[in-house]
Amino acid sequence: MSQHHETSRRLRLGMVGGGQGAFIGGVHRIAARIDDHFDLVAGAFASDPERSRVAAAELHVAEDRAYPDYRAMAEAERLRQDGIDVVAIVTPNHLHFDVAKTFLEAGIHVICDKPMTTTLEDAQTLEALVERSGLFFGLTHNYSGYPLVRQARDMVAAGELGELRVVQVEYPQDWLSTRLEDSGVKQAEWRTDPKRSGPAGCLGDIGTHAYHLARFVTELELESLAADMHTFVEGRALDDNVHMMLRFKGGARGMLWSSQVVPGNENGLKLRVYGSQGGLEWHQETPNRLIHSPLGEPPRILTRNGPGLGEAALAASRIPPGHPEGYLEAFAQLYADFAEQIHARMAGRQAGTLAASTPGVTDGVDGLRFITRALASSAAGGGWVDV
Amino acid sequence: MSQHHETSRRLRLGMVGGGQGAFIGGVHRIAARIDDHFDLVAGAFASDPERSRVAAAELHVAEDRAYPDYRAMAEAERLRQDGIDVVAIVTPNHLHFDVAKTFLEAGIHVICDKPMTTTLEDAQTLEALVERSGLFFGLTHNYSGYPLVRQARDMVAAGELGELRVVQVEYPQDWLSTRLEDSGVKQAEWRTDPKRSGPAGCLGDIGTHAYHLARFVTELELESLAADMHTFVEGRALDDNVHMMLRFKGGARGMLWSSQVVPGNENGLKLRVYGSQGGLEWHQETPNRLIHSPLGEPPRILTRNGPGLGEAALAASRIPPGHPEGYLEAFAQLYADFAEQIHARMAGRQAGTLAASTPGVTDGVDGLRFITRALASSAAGGGWVDV
Amino acid sequence: MSQHHETSRRLRLGMVGGGQGAFIGGVHRIAARIDDHFDLVAGAFASDPERSRVAAAELHVAEDRAYPDYRAMAEAERLRQDGIDVVAIVTPNHLHFDVAKTFLEAGIHVICDKPMTTTLEDAQTLEALVERSGLFFGLTHNYSGYPLVRQARDMVAAGELGELRVVQVEYPQDWLSTRLEDSGVKQAEWRTDPKRSGPAGCLGDIGTHAYHLARFVTELELESLAADMHTFVEGRALDDNVHMMLRFKGGARGMLWSSQVVPGNENGLKLRVYGSQGGLEWHQETPNRLIHSPLGEPPRILTRNGPGLGEAALAASRIPPGHPEGYLEAFAQLYADFAEQIHARMAGRQAGTLAASTPGVTDGVDGLRFITRALASSAAGGGWVDV
Amino acid sequence: MSQHHETSRRLRLGMVGGGQGAFIGGVHRIAARIDDHFDLVAGAFASDPERSRVAAAELHVAEDRAYPDYRAMAEAERLRQDGIDVVAIVTPNHLHFDVAKTFLEAGIHVICDKPMTTTLEDAQTLEALVERSGLFFGLTHNYSGYPLVRQARDMVAAGELGELRVVQVEYPQDWLSTRLEDSGVKQAEWRTDPKRSGPAGCLGDIGTHAYHLARFVTELELESLAADMHTFVEGRALDDNVHMMLRFKGGARGMLWSSQVVPGNENGLKLRVYGSQGGLEWHQETPNRLIHSPLGEPPRILTRNGPGLGEAALAASRIPPGHPEGYLEAFAQLYADFAEQIHARMAGRQAGTLAASTPGVTDGVDGLRFITRALASSAAGGGWVDV
Repeated sequence: MSQHHETSRRLRLGMVGGGQGAFIGGVHRIAARIDDHFDLVAGAFASDPERSRVAAAELHVAEDRAYPDYRAMAEAERLRQDGIDVVAIVTPNHLHFDVAKTFLEAGIHVICDKPMTTTLEDAQTLEALVERSGLFFGLTHNYSGYPLVRQARDMVAAGELGELRVVQVEYPQDWLSTRLEDSGVKQAEWRTDPKRSGPAGCLGDIGTHAYHLARFVTELELESLAADMHTFVEGRALDDNVHMMLRFKGGARGMLWSSQVVPGNENGLKLRVYGSQGGLEWHQETPNRLIHSPLGEPPRILTRNGPGLGEAALAASRIPPGHPEGYLEAFAQLYADFAEQIHARMAGRQAGTLAASTPGVTDGVDGLRFITRALASSAAGGGWVDV
Repeated sequence: MSQHHETSRRLRLGMVGGGQGAFIGGVHRIAARIDDHFDLVAGAFASDPERSRVAAAELHVAEDRAYPDYRAMAEAERLRQDGIDVVAIVTPNHLHFDVAKTFLEAGIHVICDKPMTTTLEDAQTLEALVERSGLFFGLTHNYSGYPLVRQARDMVAAGELGELRVVQVEYPQDWLSTRLEDSGVKQAEWRTDPKRSGPAGCLGDIGTHAYHLARFVTELELESLAADMHTFVEGRALDDNVHMMLRFKGGARGMLWSSQVVPGNENGLKLRVYGSQGGLEWHQETPNRLIHSPLGEPPRILTRNGPGLGEAALAASRIPPGHPEGYLEAFAQLYADFAEQIHARMAGRQAGTLAASTPGVTDGVDGLRFITRALASSAAGGGWVDV
Repeated sequence: MSQHHETSRRLRLGMVGGGQGAFIGGVHRIAARIDDHFDLVAGAFASDPERSRVAAAELHVAEDRAYPDYRAMAEAERLRQDGIDVVAIVTPNHLHFDVAKTFLEAGIHVICDKPMTTTLEDAQTLEALVERSGLFFGLTHNYSGYPLVRQARDMVAAGELGELRVVQVEYPQDWLSTRLEDSGVKQAEWRTDPKRSGPAGCLGDIGTHAYHLARFVTELELESLAADMHTFVEGRALDDNVHMMLRFKGGARGMLWSSQVVPGNENGLKLRVYGSQGGLEWHQETPNRLIHSPLGEPPRILTRNGPGLGEAALAASRIPPGHPEGYLEAFAQLYADFAEQIHARMAGRQAGTLAASTPGVTDGVDGLRFITRALASSAAGGGWVDV
Repeated sequence: MSQHHETSRRLRLGMVGGGQGAFIGGVHRIAARIDDHFDLVAGAFASDPERSRVAAAELHVAEDRAYPDYRAMAEAERLRQDGIDVVAIVTPNHLHFDVAKTFLEAGIHVICDKPMTTTLEDAQTLEALVERSGLFFGLTHNYSGYPLVRQARDMVAAGELGELRVVQVEYPQDWLSTRLEDSGVKQAEWRTDPKRSGPAGCLGDIGTHAYHLARFVTELELESLAADMHTFVEGRALDDNVHMMLRFKGGARGMLWSSQVVPGNENGLKLRVYGSQGGLEWHQETPNRLIHSPLGEPPRILTRNGPGLGEAALAASRIPPGHPEGYLEAFAQLYADFAEQIHARMAGRQAGTLAASTPGVTDGVDGLRFITRALASSAAGGGWVDV
């Protein structure tokens, strides 16, 4: 089993967004706590100052660091001796860009939820800014934090599947099967609202995760795609079901399905990758196993922290095999890796290679390009477009 | 549990194809025996007369009814007092049309393997001929014989899923991951040979099964499709991997994947259907269960012959729940239903409604139209074409 | 894949029991047909002569060979030139002994359902009679016909698990959770009636299957047991739930559970065997896979007819991997093996080694000894008794 | 989804044990952090003072609160204004008693790992002490923290299964299949050493978890048991495989199996409970689902935070369905519940009913009584003994 050293100094963490009724803010906070590399010390938790203050109190954040808005926060924290090292951005999508820009300009490292921005242009602007600044930028494509996803990536990279042929990725959910956005559920409201979510609904919310996962594991680059995006729930402004065919550089082909309207699917992210020498299959809902099918041999069940794993998978695991880790631990793994990289930057050294493969601003740009091209294909009737 | 009455007269069955080294012929014979509605009494089992004779001897078929070719067989059997009632056609695809035509013209009922022909034109010719002749024509899209597939169809028809939205069907295999056709495996030889298999490889062999299954369960009609067919194994003349997006009349959308080059997949036919009120999921490799997810309720595991099933599923089952039935029983179910329909025709009465939904010549035409349009789409770069 | 040659002469099969409302008789008939080694030509299908005649007609058995009782049948068939080669006994348990004895004494081979008799003494009498007669006696412990059960047996015998340590076998059902025997269900009536079932209820009906399966795979001999048998459903005369601890010669330990009153379990026979070098796990409801866990390596999923199997498993399979075979095919495998052995006896030669491992009269005696000792333990409060 | 309010004051937590090479200490620390109700501020992390200091530094514990031994720690913390509110005891078993006693006598609340002590007498002494002191005592039978385990308990209590009949619980592992204790693995060393582990090996380590889980869900009381404990690995002093039959007050029967020598089993805790009206099945390795089989209806798949759950299960969940929670979250749930109860005691109020069902000193006594009687049965040959 891997060693999770609890290191000497905790990083000072600020947060933008994540007040009452939010989902992903709480996830980021648990993720930051699990491996104990962060202290949450400041935040602009809500657009309403009073609600931000209440949230801060609940979160043990000092009153004077509960900010009414993120600009004030960036400004004040920049000036403090004990100012935050890093900010976590967990707002609805439409704010990601400006918040990230603000903190980067204040010289503060950034952890940002996905999709990184709502336009490709913004994403590219951010990329340039990150490059200029030398600051750390982590993007929480959290499924890449699962140990067996990293195992899959390493096996593909090591050539264990031979030449890649077929990539099947899907991400079905059912929570938006009805007009939940009319029932006062905040999650549903902003995620179906183009003003806050951007031009992509299901595609931006979970299709990007599916796409990133496929790219993360295979390291294939997309050449072209054909996307059939659709809205099934009447009166909804954004897509809630996405079908896509993919062609990768080098000849592999793929399919991608994401949906939020298919009853019986909770969070069914699933990746299957096939090459000339074998196949791999991984399901997010049973994340502690990875099926490896070497060509012409019986399939093998690889388990988290079990026999036959490589270094990356072992390093991303906390507890013995059979003691299931889950979504929060995978998310925590990104936070642990981010911490290592931030410490490395602050110390002027290289981060370890394992941590260095975590998603960042380049993946954010890649994700927005993917969204943009899928929207273009779908708008033009669903035919093939280059990426 | 259903009653499988073993009825008074067994039908006299002839067979074309199915000699040594064949796969599907043996399957048809077991299927015909399981419920005891048929006697195999004649055959042209191989193109080589001597091999046909040897096969006949092994199969307890009288020497004088082991024919050197199917034309001779049709002619002779037509004239016998105790001539065959029905012929089963289990040759490679390219022969289906002429054999079927020959026996229909001899006034003999036909059971034919799929795809029905290699061209849409032939399929339509056959359809017209069947109509004129008044003879029975059964097409062995055998997966429709599974009890829980019939249950799924009935649930959809009864509106239990609400308005249909999404259809996901896939049929991955791995047996052609390498150039097996060069190793003397007859199955692999003819199935990858355009002369014997027709213009579609994987698409014709298993893609049509996937398509039929989706149609059988949903009763949706295809409006348009976009197909990305590909050959991964070098030197192979026909497609071995097929990606497809589907649009159905009435607004449902779908995806179809069939492949014969994805290691770890044996015969992974799987159908998922989603509507506004629920979802269904069925896997051919664990065919004795059907997952039904009513919107907003816990998923339910329906089991063959278990609680909660309708008449059609119960009627297609032989033994108590928990005693797994499989591929051969599903195939046998088609044969049992065919027998009922042939008896009904011979007696000049209507067959029971359950039996009457079995696949026939119209499904054969539909399948060839599907193949033809998919080939057209793929040849034109994979864009959308009307069906 | 294995070759199932359909050999030259079908054996003439008679049947005792198996009329309307029976379950296992129909199973035996399908099993006998699947591989086409038998012709059903005679029977005493019911204790009532008229019902026997009706059954015969439905089963295409000639009127003059539909017997009013098994004694008349044995006598008549013994004298016919074309008399039956073998009889299948599918009556309630209390008749097995006398029917078997009658046919053996008439010089006719026997296939008998389990448990072989209702007393150990009868079982031993039968064993002596079989030995004296030189006739074939097959006992339908049908689960030993599954290809992956045979694979498991071979792996244990080859030492792949090292020294055996732990055997866990269970056979839970739910069909007798209520007083089904009061609802006119014949199956439930006789199986809960000591007069027809013998002194063991659940234990005799399915506990013996579990015990045989464990013995078949491990070849361990039982040294002692402690049995806690219980009747949960009020008013029922026989046990409906059995807990047992086992000690085997050589030091392995085991547990056995069989029940007919545990909702949600249809026919959940499951075997797990562990040794110093690995483990095996097999479930009857998903019989086409066997999990092999070599010590310190990832578990492997062995599939029927898939990679990595030995000769016995391959020989017991009809169709390619991924095309599920089930209960009826496993049962048919016993019939195929029985046919080979009967042919061998008739020809005065040795049967092939694969067929020769099928359950017979010795297993029947072993099963009755097991039942007898379990009853003794339970009657004495559930403590340990030698076997 | 439930609300996890992060409340106003974090409890000050001390820890005894849990230095380098320990497993469960790290688990307790993560569990304490996840819901943010605790601050780790003091510890005697190792028997060696220097190693305790090193651990403290890594854990961000102030130097002056890194104690050389637990007595010094209890004494010093008792006197501090900001002394710890509660201590977590994560040492090998043989120390639990004295450490717990020491802190209780210092007026400090206690969270203790299981088994609570190594003798029944010590357990009873502790029970009396807890009662006298009015302090909180939490026992980390962590599997009771899983939401669906709580759901199962509530369903049983609500009578959804009818009258309970059969309880099947098992806890197989494989990590001690070989003499790992000779390889310098600290976990294996002390757990197989009677001096540190107490008289029960596998039974004390995981058998008690299985027993507690069964009791927690069913609330049945054990009447008698028969235990067959065995040591398979040569040279090992303690049991590594335990078979047990159980009789509960009121008539239910059960079986319990725990093992640490069965290859392919990582942490396979599994509970099945059956009553006259239905059954439940839960596996620790896939903890986010619970199968409920109402008598005569299709089984239902209940999922964490999914439809159909009761209050207790919802309250124990952090994130939406389909986002798997695991072992650490279940453990954290106990910590969260403990925090609520400690806060309640400090405030002189009642804790909420959900939190109040967490395992405590009475369960510890019950567990030791179970161990003691099992040892007695096994020592006497495995016969039945009253509990």
